Amino acid sequence: MFEIDPAFLATSEAIGDLALSHVRLQGDARFPWIVLIPRVAGARELEDLAGGERDVLMEEVLRAGAAARAVAETLGRPAAKLNVAQLGNVTPQLHVHVIARRPDDPAWPAPVWGFGVAEAYAPAALQAALAAARVTLGL
Amino acid sequence: MFEIDPAFLATSEAIGDLALSHVRLQGDARFPWIVLIPRVAGARELEDLAGGERDVLMEEVLRAGAAARAVAETLGRPAAKLNVAQLGNVTPQLHVHVIARRPDDPAWPAPVWGFGVAEAYAPAALQAALAAARVTLGL
Repeated sequence: MFEIDPAFLATSEAIGDLALSHVRLQGDARFPWIVLIPRVAGARELEDLAGGERDVLMEEVLRAGAAARAVAETLGRPAAKLNVAQLGNVTPQLHVHVIARRPDDPAWPAPVWGFGVAEAYAPAALQAALAAARVTLGL
Repeated sequence: MFEIDPAFLATSEAIGDLALSHVRLQGDARFPWIVLIPRVAGARELEDLAGGERDVLMEEVLRAGAAARAVAETLGRPAAKLNVAQLGNVTPQLHVHVIARRPDDPAWPAPVWGFGVAEAYAPAALQAALAAARVTLGL
């Protein structure tokens, strides 16, 4: 049975569910950052998905990119670049990061993982970010 | 017209061409590391590929994962985890990193980008790594 790893619950907010993936907003106001978690029990690598599931995931990555861009616009910092990654060295449950980046963000041009300390969203900004992501994803 | 960014030529060795992507071995003996560069002029984001191209890229990512595992075996350090990422903050031409990781590699569990300094392969190890990747990819 599929269950979300508690590590995600502690660090991100639920946006909703797409056909394959549960979608979350990383709780770090420094970066507009979506996390996709395919609802496939035991999956740790892309290899663990069926071919059709991988194609769905690729399209959900595209949609998450549009959502990350929408969150970035809402926060007044439009994206200049998207970063997409499936790592899982720390939390092995299969997940994909989709992050809106720009040259004036604090980590640029380095990747965001392990960079400094997450900054909590102000409550109104969090609600605006979640709303922008949901509208873009049709959720 | 598609041309490989010279930044890749300086840091990696050609493995060959799949249907969509030019495939290279990153010249860093610390990590078995494949780079896929879709041969699509001007592409910087996954959004810049057509839907069919994205599905091909996903399958080439899977094949690159198998190749990275084969390189890791050849070097006597079998993979425990794959890391896959499309970043492009430094070199914007669309490319995907596929890297074999293990808990005793020097950067674990952090990502490899920007970690320390690349170590050149010994000539025999480089030839063995390229051969393992080519056999796995059917090149």
